[in-house]
Amino acid sequence: MSQNLRVAVIGAGRMGIDHIQRIHRRIHGAEVAAVVDIALDRANAAIAGIPGAVALADAREALENPDINAVLIATPGFLHEDILHTALARDVPILCEKPLTPDAESAWKVVQAEEKLGRQRIQVGFMRRFDAEYAQLGELIRSGELGELLVLHHQHRNASTPAGFTNEMLINDSVVHEFDAVRFFTGDEITSVQVRMGKRTRNAPAGQHDPQHVLLETESGVLADVEIYVNAQYGYEVATQASFESGVVSIGGDSGPSVRTQGRWGGKIAPGFEERFAAAYDVEVQAWADAALQDRVGGPTAWDGYATAECCEAGVEAQRTGAKVPVQLNTKPALYS
Amino acid sequence: MSQNLRVAVIGAGRMGIDHIQRIHRRIHGAEVAAVVDIALDRANAAIAGIPGAVALADAREALENPDINAVLIATPGFLHEDILHTALARDVPILCEKPLTPDAESAWKVVQAEEKLGRQRIQVGFMRRFDAEYAQLGELIRSGELGELLVLHHQHRNASTPAGFTNEMLINDSVVHEFDAVRFFTGDEITSVQVRMGKRTRNAPAGQHDPQHVLLETESGVLADVEIYVNAQYGYEVATQASFESGVVSIGGDSGPSVRTQGRWGGKIAPGFEERFAAAYDVEVQAWADAALQDRVGGPTAWDGYATAECCEAGVEAQRTGAKVPVQLNTKPALYS
Amino acid sequence: MSQNLRVAVIGAGRMGIDHIQRIHRRIHGAEVAAVVDIALDRANAAIAGIPGAVALADAREALENPDINAVLIATPGFLHEDILHTALARDVPILCEKPLTPDAESAWKVVQAEEKLGRQRIQVGFMRRFDAEYAQLGELIRSGELGELLVLHHQHRNASTPAGFTNEMLINDSVVHEFDAVRFFTGDEITSVQVRMGKRTRNAPAGQHDPQHVLLETESGVLADVEIYVNAQYGYEVATQASFESGVVSIGGDSGPSVRTQGRWGGKIAPGFEERFAAAYDVEVQAWADAALQDRVGGPTAWDGYATAECCEAGVEAQRTGAKVPVQLNTKPALYS
Amino acid sequence: MSQNLRVAVIGAGRMGIDHIQRIHRRIHGAEVAAVVDIALDRANAAIAGIPGAVALADAREALENPDINAVLIATPGFLHEDILHTALARDVPILCEKPLTPDAESAWKVVQAEEKLGRQRIQVGFMRRFDAEYAQLGELIRSGELGELLVLHHQHRNASTPAGFTNEMLINDSVVHEFDAVRFFTGDEITSVQVRMGKRTRNAPAGQHDPQHVLLETESGVLADVEIYVNAQYGYEVATQASFESGVVSIGGDSGPSVRTQGRWGGKIAPGFEERFAAAYDVEVQAWADAALQDRVGGPTAWDGYATAECCEAGVEAQRTGAKVPVQLNTKPALYS
Repeated sequence: MSQNLRVAVIGAGRMGIDHIQRIHRRIHGAEVAAVVDIALDRANAAIAGIPGAVALADAREALENPDINAVLIATPGFLHEDILHTALARDVPILCEKPLTPDAESAWKVVQAEEKLGRQRIQVGFMRRFDAEYAQLGELIRSGELGELLVLHHQHRNASTPAGFTNEMLINDSVVHEFDAVRFFTGDEITSVQVRMGKRTRNAPAGQHDPQHVLLETESGVLADVEIYVNAQYGYEVATQASFESGVVSIGGDSGPSVRTQGRWGGKIAPGFEERFAAAYDVEVQAWADAALQDRVGGPTAWDGYATAECCEAGVEAQRTGAKVPVQLNTKPALYS
Repeated sequence: MSQNLRVAVIGAGRMGIDHIQRIHRRIHGAEVAAVVDIALDRANAAIAGIPGAVALADAREALENPDINAVLIATPGFLHEDILHTALARDVPILCEKPLTPDAESAWKVVQAEEKLGRQRIQVGFMRRFDAEYAQLGELIRSGELGELLVLHHQHRNASTPAGFTNEMLINDSVVHEFDAVRFFTGDEITSVQVRMGKRTRNAPAGQHDPQHVLLETESGVLADVEIYVNAQYGYEVATQASFESGVVSIGGDSGPSVRTQGRWGGKIAPGFEERFAAAYDVEVQAWADAALQDRVGGPTAWDGYATAECCEAGVEAQRTGAKVPVQLNTKPALYS
Repeated sequence: MSQNLRVAVIGAGRMGIDHIQRIHRRIHGAEVAAVVDIALDRANAAIAGIPGAVALADAREALENPDINAVLIATPGFLHEDILHTALARDVPILCEKPLTPDAESAWKVVQAEEKLGRQRIQVGFMRRFDAEYAQLGELIRSGELGELLVLHHQHRNASTPAGFTNEMLINDSVVHEFDAVRFFTGDEITSVQVRMGKRTRNAPAGQHDPQHVLLETESGVLADVEIYVNAQYGYEVATQASFESGVVSIGGDSGPSVRTQGRWGGKIAPGFEERFAAAYDVEVQAWADAALQDRVGGPTAWDGYATAECCEAGVEAQRTGAKVPVQLNTKPALYS
Repeated sequence: MSQNLRVAVIGAGRMGIDHIQRIHRRIHGAEVAAVVDIALDRANAAIAGIPGAVALADAREALENPDINAVLIATPGFLHEDILHTALARDVPILCEKPLTPDAESAWKVVQAEEKLGRQRIQVGFMRRFDAEYAQLGELIRSGELGELLVLHHQHRNASTPAGFTNEMLINDSVVHEFDAVRFFTGDEITSVQVRMGKRTRNAPAGQHDPQHVLLETESGVLADVEIYVNAQYGYEVATQASFESGVVSIGGDSGPSVRTQGRWGGKIAPGFEERFAAAYDVEVQAWADAALQDRVGGPTAWDGYATAECCEAGVEAQRTGAKVPVQLNTKPALYS
């Protein structure tokens, strides 16, 4: 492969622009070669000050450009499938923001296409795995230092949700991160999902029940609960407590300067995921670029994208029924083992 | 009532001795007048150094003694019912260690006897309500400062369990504290209990499944989960996180001196409930004595004892079935409203 | 000695009333027998609701009353000397709020009078020794677990000062606590004091330089610095960090419920010393009562009162000169060894 | 300037290799073009796996190479002066590890040479300014949000020191960071230094007095104390507490996962500065590269290097005399204002 990744970023919305600036300013070995957005003026705005980058309205055009040897997909999820198949056909490294695709069936087709290609090309944007504390907890679990992992408690809180954020999106856009986190921590697949809706905050928009309580189980019997609370007002917070056979580990706690003023001690809470996980995004994209330059994938795979899509479908059914809904996965292709 | 409480402590086991020393050394307005234990040598040992106290083998004898005007019951739970009825007949202030009685039916009979007596005489030993942080969280909830309370997360961990500590005891002796705490915090009754058993620690004794995951619901819809984990090895820990409409509050976190040594920062964890809740026990017994001297009850009532007994019965059934088991209470007598 | 201490509380100001309520409600083995205040209406108000207590305008009258067998002195410091000598003549247990007396010369006379009496009767109100974390740090130092203690860092901050709080009072009323704390932690006497005045807060009243930086040295060479800052606005805070040969220990850090709201995590800071050290005052007075009932002293002695008075005199001179001022003590009487 | 910095790293010791790997793997816009070490085998080892990099034994040879357009100096300090003058003559961007030079006189000559060149080319490696918490505290001070800054407390602790680490090195290699930090936080120059030596740890090597207590004053009257303790055994810790007119801010506190095991809560302490400040080094070198590509300096200047050298000379004299030693600076050239 050439010296540097020449990346086409597809989608110049909030996440796309964030990644464009990241690649342009901080990622070693990668450059922005093209920005694609159906709104060409957005693409043009996004390449301002980036020498050698072009603005395009069509992802196919970017993928036919020989100057481009890598793709970062940051469009809304429903547009992922088509771009993924085109990029797989080009056989270039792909970093695809989560979700892989919006449903398990289409995700499975992507997995099958990659399996047919015969090598892993897709990394899915579950960036939490690259957060320093997530990584340390993952290592601690695998080390066995505190015995077996038994229970996981997750809190996932947003200050508020945009208009039109539905109950299904609570699972598909928010809890999907915990589905991946539980799989990452345990090394297991998730076998069932239950969702309980209790008292509702008056700050939730009409039609949305918030917060919700999600209870998962994995192959080896680990139980994981998730408080998903997306109109929590006070800021963005993602935290996990893990109970082991001989200890308990907490991550995502308080950080930053501690201030004492006006009768209070404490510090600031990140307003959103961009601030909270800024460093994790940098590490994620650098890991992708480093691996891509060696023709490998440096993070969660298309299989992870597919498996979490199955969890999401079970989760949405569990919301509807209140019952414990089993998660059934297709057989895992050898490519991902 | 006379100037001081002259207390008969029934039961000179671990808790009894703890209370005897507390009353003898730290509680203002109360004195140990008698210690009753079927093993008279234990009772005699317990009164050593306490001028004016007598040792007896029979609770009835203590209750007939005119020098005694208050009773603290610290025997095993199965002996409570009989002593409670005798003490109610004497119409003296009673502090009864939890549980009120071992099952809902007998607890209900105690409630009925007290109702017949026509005034509250029994305080039940749910001492967590007297812990400074529990009390502060309770006040914060009632103040409405952070909006409505929505979700409660509880962790209840012991270092280890004595031989013969069964699954039922996990509910009846341990989670019973969370049943009371949830009722205390919400001001609601609990309406259902579900119990899930996941991965089991190898440190649990044969026949006991540890940890367990308990999910409660209250009248107003508050959801509460409990990690009950009684062989957690590392120490004793009781913590709660409460999610409100506009904030989140955590209690039971780290405390005490913070030490940096050998590559680590941190502090000590209490080995057991005596150390963790030592101050709460003092406050509890002082509150009882203060109220008793004014012919009132200064804490959880017989109704609280009865209602938690119903929760325990539902909890044990939920352990067995895995289903969400409703909690059904008798009508609350006017005496407790 | 009789069953209970029958205490005359001298001074019904803020601290006096606090102690009266403490003894009346929470201290086992002690009762308020008399309250003395030159303003008799204050004394009368203070005994309201305390059966058996009398209000008096003259301390001598209280000390002649045979119903009284103990004295707690809570008047302004300049009145202590006379009451102390009278109470010593009565040979009753004395708890004297700090300072023992306002200067080293009069303090030394009190020490000599007690020496002549031939037994320790005076306990001085350095209540920090009874704070749980202070006590734990003291034990840790004496245990040698982390090697020798080398350096102490103290922060002593008040929200604000009353009108007329002078530079001298910064030493005599505030830093005096650190003088005692350093002596308590090290077991050494203090050998020199240096005071530096840097940038001044605009919140200090005219004529007062705040904050100040105090640097102490002890017999064994331990260095201790103190930030004394009495118009710190945000609340009351007392904290210490101790550096040992193999570790560092911090006390006085954050405590209480941790709240996340409005973009911030954290908790509340005590507004004043009464809240911060409420438990320490209870422990102090109980320790005094327990010891007094056995004809002993249960805390800091008159010698401690004298030695800190010498430190204060050196501190005030150090404020004036900026130089390192030696502290010279009279020979310690055998009574205190 | 060309697209990328082509950097000659001078010195392939511990810090040099760290920077080589950093530039090679993580810094956007910079590449390792040459590694210079008098031990050519070390230079050769350091370029392994870096395409396009050459190994050289002589810094002059690197600076004559037209492929090279930037210099990072990571040799021992006594070698800096000569390389700095040569690199200034080449008029290329320079990142020079601290100290600028080992004494104030030679540092002043470097300042004069740069002044003569007429533009800032030298950035000095005071990397703490790039630590996220340092930066946040700096911003908070400049914002005036908590009023004026009044006092700074610093703790600087290392696990141990290499053989031959003298008292002078305690100032020149360790406290030099606090000299810069105090100047960075206050925006003032330091006007005096006092050093006190108290009780000595038995873990200090012969001839070294450890810990030491340093007291600084700045132009505007801010007082700053430093506990420098370089054989603290337990790990590496750098922390600061800043007292303002209306609040107090602490940085450098506990971070990372919190673990509860074996009767303790807490987390890990970084073993050394490389781990503690790893992210700060990345930010520092990226800031240097970004600025250098725009012909600017992105951090502390040669003036900062000179001013701290004067502080060090005063500090060493203060160690010797115990007195408060004034710091006298040459007039600041307009180039640095």
